[in-house]
Amino acid sequence: MCELLGMSANVPTDIVFSFTGLMQRGGRTGPHRDGWGIGFYEGRGLRLFQDPRASSESEVAQLVQRYPIKSEVVIGHIRQANVGRICLANTHPFVRELWGRNWCFAHNGQLAGFSPDLRFYRPVGDTDSEAAFCDLLNRLRAVFEEAPEVAALLPVMLEACALYRRHGVFNCLLSDGDWLFSFCSSKLAHITRRAPFGPAHLKDADMQVDFQAETTPNDVVTVLATEPLTDNEDWTLYQPGEWRLWRGGECVAQGQLENADV
Amino acid sequence: MCELLGMSANVPTDIVFSFTGLMQRGGRTGPHRDGWGIGFYEGRGLRLFQDPRASSESEVAQLVQRYPIKSEVVIGHIRQANVGRICLANTHPFVRELWGRNWCFAHNGQLAGFSPDLRFYRPVGDTDSEAAFCDLLNRLRAVFEEAPEVAALLPVMLEACALYRRHGVFNCLLSDGDWLFSFCSSKLAHITRRAPFGPAHLKDADMQVDFQAETTPNDVVTVLATEPLTDNEDWTLYQPGEWRLWRGGECVAQGQLENADV
Repeated sequence: MCELLGMSANVPTDIVFSFTGLMQRGGRTGPHRDGWGIGFYEGRGLRLFQDPRASSESEVAQLVQRYPIKSEVVIGHIRQANVGRICLANTHPFVRELWGRNWCFAHNGQLAGFSPDLRFYRPVGDTDSEAAFCDLLNRLRAVFEEAPEVAALLPVMLEACALYRRHGVFNCLLSDGDWLFSFCSSKLAHITRRAPFGPAHLKDADMQVDFQAETTPNDVVTVLATEPLTDNEDWTLYQPGEWRLWRGGECVAQGQLENADV
Repeated sequence: MCELLGMSANVPTDIVFSFTGLMQRGGRTGPHRDGWGIGFYEGRGLRLFQDPRASSESEVAQLVQRYPIKSEVVIGHIRQANVGRICLANTHPFVRELWGRNWCFAHNGQLAGFSPDLRFYRPVGDTDSEAAFCDLLNRLRAVFEEAPEVAALLPVMLEACALYRRHGVFNCLLSDGDWLFSFCSSKLAHITRRAPFGPAHLKDADMQVDFQAETTPNDVVTVLATEPLTDNEDWTLYQPGEWRLWRGGECVAQGQLENADV
């Protein structure tokens, strides 16, 4: 299994604190030694850092922890390989351009017996995760020639998620840089921080931050992770089948797949 | 104008020396203050570092200079903006997946009155360079459903290069991680280093390397740049219209577009 990290915010926000917590799970407090990656949107651009080495030992991870990159949407991942060799091409998050935007995707879980008909987008590596991402984009492209509103994308995305989870475990984060879509098949959590901000303390490292000192009263920042990253805040745990769509830190749509879809 | 940097080698080789020279031109010895980027292939994976800030002041550039990433194919670029704002989305090199491989592209020059019919691949930013890259991939995709041998790609690529240079200046580097294609419309140079290796001294920084101590007798490493990076070696300067295809450090095909194509 792997660990996901996501952020949606209404102002460019650095994720150093949450990233530091996640990185400990990459070989120190967790078993996820098989690579890590994180994508930061800057406008329509996407800054991607990846390393097939354990995050707790990675020089690139140290740079990212030291370097407060501010972004409104972030997707990160640390990997414990189950399908696919340990190599850069198999390291999440995966990126493709669709309708002139960078789409970024990370997956926690594994899919058995999943071999989609790959039309346009094709995996570079050999993970089930990248195959699912390519399949999802192929489905969207087959339905829409031009980018529709995200609300119109949701039925296609949810139908695909329902299919993927029938093949195993499929927790995922997906973004086009504007919105962030989160789907839970087994495990996902989020917290939305807004005024009045308080202190937060990492579970995985002895590190505390006082968000009061780092924010303005209008900031809204949602952080998503496979498991809560702090031990003194109330995280919301997703139910299996639950999904949410985030924009500017706020949940703008949510729902749950029917049992029949399970 | 911008500066290009490319490498093709028969063993994973670090490009720290050449990159250090190039980076000086990003705001110190050269005027290219509007961002930089470099992509390193690792197998089929591509490690991309980019920054819209001047390379001589970029913390990410310092990491890359300090961190000997070994690769067989590298494409780098520093930018002096002429078309398109200074932002991450407009920072070279550009990447797209085609036929399950990462294609990477960087361009030096500018194209006037160039507005291709963008079918599948579309620019994320607003540079003429990314539009040309997308157009080139759309052309390849329109001709070949599956990846052919690179020899079969060349006529399509050269026809596209002939078209682009009619719109202005089009020096470029393109790779799918296996081969590296170089095209010169106005300015490009290369050097192939092989045994017996000697010392090399950078033009843009007081830095010398003794390749003898860093290599084995079988290593073949070709470095390409807009202008020679060292002042004590014999670089080959391209003629306008000249192109070369590199694989494992060796030139495996070359030619020159006819005057009629100019």
